[in-house]
Amino acid sequence: MILELADIRIHAGQHAAFEAAVELGISTVAAKANGFLGHTLHKGIESTDRYVLQISWSSLEDHTVGFREGPLFPQWRAIVGPFFSQPPVVEHFNVA
Amino acid sequence: MILELADIRIHAGQHAAFEAAVELGISTVAAKANGFLGHTLHKGIESTDRYVLQISWSSLEDHTVGFREGPLFPQWRAIVGPFFSQPPVVEHFNVA
Repeated sequence: MILELADIRIHAGQHAAFEAAVELGISTVAAKANGFLGHTLHKGIESTDRYVLQISWSSLEDHTVGFREGPLFPQWRAIVGPFFSQPPVVEHFNVA
Repeated sequence: MILELADIRIHAGQHAAFEAAVELGISTVAAKANGFLGHTLHKGIESTDRYVLQISWSSLEDHTVGFREGPLFPQWRAIVGPFFSQPPVVEHFNVA
């Protein structure tokens, strides 16, 4: 299992709509991807327009190849992308 | 409950020693703090000298006041601080 951490900045004042979009995009799109294991959305306290979306995947390639290069990714981005004020910073982690 | 996310960069080649220091520092120091609920250490895949340390606290002030301004913080920093190649970037989050 690996963890994707997506550091996201959204346009101000869009919190409720963004959070609803993430739930919709996860449940209707991302959760269908091979190797998708679960997610948590964290909302910034100091940086109120910052979110960290954590997604657990069975393997790195389930995210970087299967999801990112497959037909689900544009569907996901169509739902959540309009809220981004800048490109998210995404990296992957192992539990140490 | 809130989540502290500490984005940490360490000196190259110190992974095993840093991970052992975090376990020591958590178990002997941080876990004694009021409101400490648990932690997970994530190790970067793309950025191999990057770690994200997640600590759950009962409240924001348990970390920012009780721990950061109390006697445990210098003990914690003495154990893990020497591994940092730059000051960690720390912010707090609510589960959205």
